[in-house]
Amino acid sequence: MVKRNIGVVLFDQFELLDVFGPLEMFGVLPKSFEIHLLAEQPGTVASTQGPRSVVDRTFADAGSLDMLLIPGGRGARNEVGNEFLLDWLRQRAEDAEVVASVCTGSAVLAAAGLLNGRRATSNKRSFEWVMTQGPEVLWVPEARWVVDGKFHTSGGVAAGIDMALEIISDLEGEEVAVKVAEGTEYDWHRDASWDPFAKLAGLV
Amino acid sequence: MVKRNIGVVLFDQFELLDVFGPLEMFGVLPKSFEIHLLAEQPGTVASTQGPRSVVDRTFADAGSLDMLLIPGGRGARNEVGNEFLLDWLRQRAEDAEVVASVCTGSAVLAAAGLLNGRRATSNKRSFEWVMTQGPEVLWVPEARWVVDGKFHTSGGVAAGIDMALEIISDLEGEEVAVKVAEGTEYDWHRDASWDPFAKLAGLV
Repeated sequence: MVKRNIGVVLFDQFELLDVFGPLEMFGVLPKSFEIHLLAEQPGTVASTQGPRSVVDRTFADAGSLDMLLIPGGRGARNEVGNEFLLDWLRQRAEDAEVVASVCTGSAVLAAAGLLNGRRATSNKRSFEWVMTQGPEVLWVPEARWVVDGKFHTSGGVAAGIDMALEIISDLEGEEVAVKVAEGTEYDWHRDASWDPFAKLAGLV
Repeated sequence: MVKRNIGVVLFDQFELLDVFGPLEMFGVLPKSFEIHLLAEQPGTVASTQGPRSVVDRTFADAGSLDMLLIPGGRGARNEVGNEFLLDWLRQRAEDAEVVASVCTGSAVLAAAGLLNGRRATSNKRSFEWVMTQGPEVLWVPEARWVVDGKFHTSGGVAAGIDMALEIISDLEGEEVAVKVAEGTEYDWHRDASWDPFAKLAGLV
């Protein structure tokens, strides 16, 4: 069995559930996934909601990463201009098997140029701003999540949980993903086109 | 507007989403709720899934708390025998407006005797063990969450998000809770009796 290293990008004012929704799903399979919380500096990072997380490794010491996970949150508005992070993402995305974003995390991937010519989605209420970060991205306003090659981008916050289960299904098999959802008593939305929130945000 | 202090009980091997699902919902309302991560010792606490959180205050220095939130996770199996924590919970539950648990967190409340004679639920796959922690509790096997007085207990992991939204609805109004769910693109299960996981676990 292959054990994959997941590198989770933390930055000041990340959105709590963008990170810990997907990590709950990957984290109940410790034989398949190892989680590493990464940031520019060692120490701790505060979420938008307040709670702080401990950085496992800096970007520079991240080691081999099979999957990258980029959250959104208020801080994403700053990170789209963080050239150090964008450079690091460009380098690491090349070797990664999966590059995933939740919510406005796709704006950061777009700012790095990684989504150019690709289909992608994002938080529905911030969609107008997100699109400005990637004029060459084929933005999909109505989608729970979108997959284009190795890039998996989800809608806002809770949508990341559905995307994570889909990634688990791809990598470990559908049965495993169903078991994870059932074990966490999560009502998995398995249809990537299910998206009532695009309508609520006036996008469709 | 009243601002309520939420005291979140952390212990070694707490379940990630039990804590950060509800805290996402409360945390997007910073004018209504202030979040404090509490533990026996200062420093950091590791979740069952790996990621570590920073303790804001120790139990001894917790200050005034309007709401208590007790998660489950592998560590709950130890905490049911932690007399220091159980004593603290008994004291603090008396003054709190809301005492909430997610997943096997209700086993800890039961071990403290706080649920005696009350209706409560828990994680469906661990239900047999949970019941042994509170023979005088009126356990409800099929429920997304159960409210009895100030005690709100939810099913496993993701069920805590639905319970948190219901608490927000009670305290801040239904419209606010609906907005929180929509803003986080979460498909809120508003029917407390909705529970396919009880059947899957063979409880009904």
